[in-house]
Amino acid sequence: MGFYNYNLTIDKLLDYGASVYPDREIVYRDRRRYSFSLFSENVKSFAQSLIKIGVKPGDKVAVVDWDTDVYMTAYYSVPMIGAVLHTVNVRYPPELILKTVLHAEDSWVIIRDEFVPLLEKGKNLLSRFKGVITYNDDKEKIKTSFPTYDFWELQESGERLSQQEIKEDMQATVFYTSGTTGDPKGVWFTHRDLVLHSMSVALTTSKPPLRSSQEDNFMILVPMFHVHQWGFPYVTMLVGSNYVLPGRYDPAMEIELMKREHVTFSAMVPTILYMILSHPNAQKNQDLFKGWKVMIGGAALPSGLAHLARKMGINIAVGYGMSETAPVLTVGYYNSLVERLNEEERFLEQIKTGVPIPLAQIRVVDERGQDVPRDEKTVGEIVARAPWLTRSYYKDEERTNKLWKDSWLHTGDLAVVDKYGYIRIVDRDKDAIKSGGEFIPSLILEDIISTHPKVGEVAIVGVKDEKWGERPVAFIVPKGEVKEEEIVEFLMEKVEEGKLQKWWIPDKVVFLKEFPKTSTNKIDKKTLRTQV
Amino acid sequence: MGFYNYNLTIDKLLDYGASVYPDREIVYRDRRRYSFSLFSENVKSFAQSLIKIGVKPGDKVAVVDWDTDVYMTAYYSVPMIGAVLHTVNVRYPPELILKTVLHAEDSWVIIRDEFVPLLEKGKNLLSRFKGVITYNDDKEKIKTSFPTYDFWELQESGERLSQQEIKEDMQATVFYTSGTTGDPKGVWFTHRDLVLHSMSVALTTSKPPLRSSQEDNFMILVPMFHVHQWGFPYVTMLVGSNYVLPGRYDPAMEIELMKREHVTFSAMVPTILYMILSHPNAQKNQDLFKGWKVMIGGAALPSGLAHLARKMGINIAVGYGMSETAPVLTVGYYNSLVERLNEEERFLEQIKTGVPIPLAQIRVVDERGQDVPRDEKTVGEIVARAPWLTRSYYKDEERTNKLWKDSWLHTGDLAVVDKYGYIRIVDRDKDAIKSGGEFIPSLILEDIISTHPKVGEVAIVGVKDEKWGERPVAFIVPKGEVKEEEIVEFLMEKVEEGKLQKWWIPDKVVFLKEFPKTSTNKIDKKTLRTQV
Repeated sequence: MGFYNYNLTIDKLLDYGASVYPDREIVYRDRRRYSFSLFSENVKSFAQSLIKIGVKPGDKVAVVDWDTDVYMTAYYSVPMIGAVLHTVNVRYPPELILKTVLHAEDSWVIIRDEFVPLLEKGKNLLSRFKGVITYNDDKEKIKTSFPTYDFWELQESGERLSQQEIKEDMQATVFYTSGTTGDPKGVWFTHRDLVLHSMSVALTTSKPPLRSSQEDNFMILVPMFHVHQWGFPYVTMLVGSNYVLPGRYDPAMEIELMKREHVTFSAMVPTILYMILSHPNAQKNQDLFKGWKVMIGGAALPSGLAHLARKMGINIAVGYGMSETAPVLTVGYYNSLVERLNEEERFLEQIKTGVPIPLAQIRVVDERGQDVPRDEKTVGEIVARAPWLTRSYYKDEERTNKLWKDSWLHTGDLAVVDKYGYIRIVDRDKDAIKSGGEFIPSLILEDIISTHPKVGEVAIVGVKDEKWGERPVAFIVPKGEVKEEEIVEFLMEKVEEGKLQKWWIPDKVVFLKEFPKTSTNKIDKKTLRTQV
Repeated sequence: MGFYNYNLTIDKLLDYGASVYPDREIVYRDRRRYSFSLFSENVKSFAQSLIKIGVKPGDKVAVVDWDTDVYMTAYYSVPMIGAVLHTVNVRYPPELILKTVLHAEDSWVIIRDEFVPLLEKGKNLLSRFKGVITYNDDKEKIKTSFPTYDFWELQESGERLSQQEIKEDMQATVFYTSGTTGDPKGVWFTHRDLVLHSMSVALTTSKPPLRSSQEDNFMILVPMFHVHQWGFPYVTMLVGSNYVLPGRYDPAMEIELMKREHVTFSAMVPTILYMILSHPNAQKNQDLFKGWKVMIGGAALPSGLAHLARKMGINIAVGYGMSETAPVLTVGYYNSLVERLNEEERFLEQIKTGVPIPLAQIRVVDERGQDVPRDEKTVGEIVARAPWLTRSYYKDEERTNKLWKDSWLHTGDLAVVDKYGYIRIVDRDKDAIKSGGEFIPSLILEDIISTHPKVGEVAIVGVKDEKWGERPVAFIVPKGEVKEEEIVEFLMEKVEEGKLQKWWIPDKVVFLKEFPKTSTNKIDKKTLRTQV
């Protein structure tokens, strides 16, 4: 009963938000809205209901849902009682979902009505669960061939959360990330990881150029099953911003919500930004985008898209991280060197990979582990340390050892560093193209092609070549009519301007109507490779 | 060599500052200036020199200095090698300094030339030290009757800091705080405490109304021996602001530095603000204060001074904490309820004690431990939890048990809570006046008297009274001529306005030319009491 040993647990974030920003709101589409204060009560009453139906500390609770208020409730309730939140990737094919649920050893599931058929497919699966919690948006009871709990009943129970003894080093979350080969890998995070990540991201986004604050309204367009939605469901409590949840993604609904809820801050992968800005409703609502703060991550931001966004008055900064890193490691905010540049020069730095956020330590190292020079040329691997990185791949010692070689987390991403210290990723290790013994930086190539006025989206992949080992092929989703020769001519000009090497020019250009996308809305290069 | 167990140690703050804000500056008066990057090198080279002369992990290193670049170097170097920084209160009388140095078991001392005679007074003291490091501003060697190291030589050694294995729960600092009775109490903090406190303060000051950022230039007017200068020597690395150190306090120099270094952010006790604003040079430089961000703490901010500051365009917010709490617990920033008020109403909240900063949990409780209602009337004690509070008074179990009763830190400060959740301290426990069985809130009384146009500073103390137990006496430092009757008449008006109770009116008014001050520049009520 003496000194209080304060643990960095996520209930502290919720308590802070509910106490200092009680009437800030969580908004789910046009369906429901809650003040932080009411949300906090709901979270606690649902958490106590979970205890009552038998959820124990250490139990894994799968959530199968779009980005909803129900999901947001689970983000807090589940870890708050010492259970583990498994954010299931609903864009995986059914067998893969099954695989991850079995690998994670989930014993409970919270599932939206439309996904319930998934459960019925895997009969063995059902017998593994101690309980299934279902819900739908109309708050009706779901009809199933097996017994279920209703989410709304559990949430509205009005139960008071009993005293919890949660330690900061307890596991809070687990989810799966696809590798290039083999099964998805499970990464996991503790309460402490999530709290420290949230503090650092909140501090970073408060800095110029984003300057996020309690006056902002957030709508994050990163799926909630994907790396904690980049941490924002937790960050919002520290910032004190309204939080808009768009449900299943749909650009028209997103634009509608932007308008109605005065959204001022978002985060997303480049593809989603492209989809929104190229939507017909976007053209009709140009004013919506002026001053919109957008954090881009998950894939390199093509210059073409970046400049389009800038022209529309969007305040953009690129972030970088991966599933293994919770995820944020760097953001293209202003360091003291870049702050002094003119607006145009600063912009070019904002859309690189950025500089480390507080407490993160990032290096770009050569094969002997030495830092590469800041010459924007020498390529090295990004390695990282931070107080929020996954300790291991879940039940996978071999791949863990590769990840944590020499006590630095090896990202497998290749990058250069410029004179201001800003990192620029030139390739993901797995996408690297080695031609005639040398690397072709596919991201730089994509970036240049993206600035052609008739190019919508572009992806470069390497294909086997007898003579050179590998050669690049360009896949393009065009805007209007364009021919292969025009692209090649354009690239020849860039060669003359000294922006690329002649031997980098793709051997072939393939035009597509639409790109295959991964479950997290990145361009699926694996599928593209099989198409050549 | 696998997973890197990241410890929250203060070297991480320095590394962040030096990496993201390399050319931000630390400025010591008109004498010396360093970029963060150079400062970081100096810190590490001095740290390695400390190791070389024999400083071991766990050794206590006393620093006896004004607010200088040397002190700032010690703030990082000493804890960075696992040693403990003892920030000695140089405003204590010599015997008390001696007492704290012996109690802390300091084995090394870093001392500015002008304080060296202190060491020669206590002969026994010298034999306890393993080494004495001296310096002066002219970088000359100090002449002493005993062997010493020269700070500049150690700092400029150019040594590279060897790999350190510092754990976040290792003690980083210790210092002493005066009680009302008995000896000063030693409080101590770990690396983790300091890092988490810094993150939370950096995030808080980035919020409205202060909105601190890397564009600000800090000059903190809280002594570096006093509760980590409220954490700002560490916070500045996270914010990326320039950091101006004023040396020994002198309002003329401070105003000069404000002008020359374009100071935009400061923190101080009310007395220092009063001294600056009433200085003749302040009148000549009115423009200097427009937009100046000032965090006030350490004592209640009198309304009179607050309104003067506001009239001059100063952006003010009051903070609250104590030595035991590292120190910050609350700041008068905007919660979501106050944000919506008009400017005048918001201002009245900013100058209260505020709301909890991120991760801090604050309650105002009655004698049974129940939260008091938000009625601005019911008085309770402030109790706190946060991940940066002192675990114990150093070698003092009895007073530790009182501090950490029921696993909440008991501040001994009495407060009310208003409808927006803002706390207002009505009395320090030790200053409370009980008259006829009821409390007279001396801070409210002082606050009202401070609004009289002829009152400069005011303090209320309780004196023994046969009939009532205690009765209040007012001490006033007047601006110009004023009589006791005028004050009493003024207070009678306030009684009629319903702002105070008639029986609160002091029985006596004593006019002074100057107030006795404590070592941390607060009005010394203990001394005043002896004068009645």
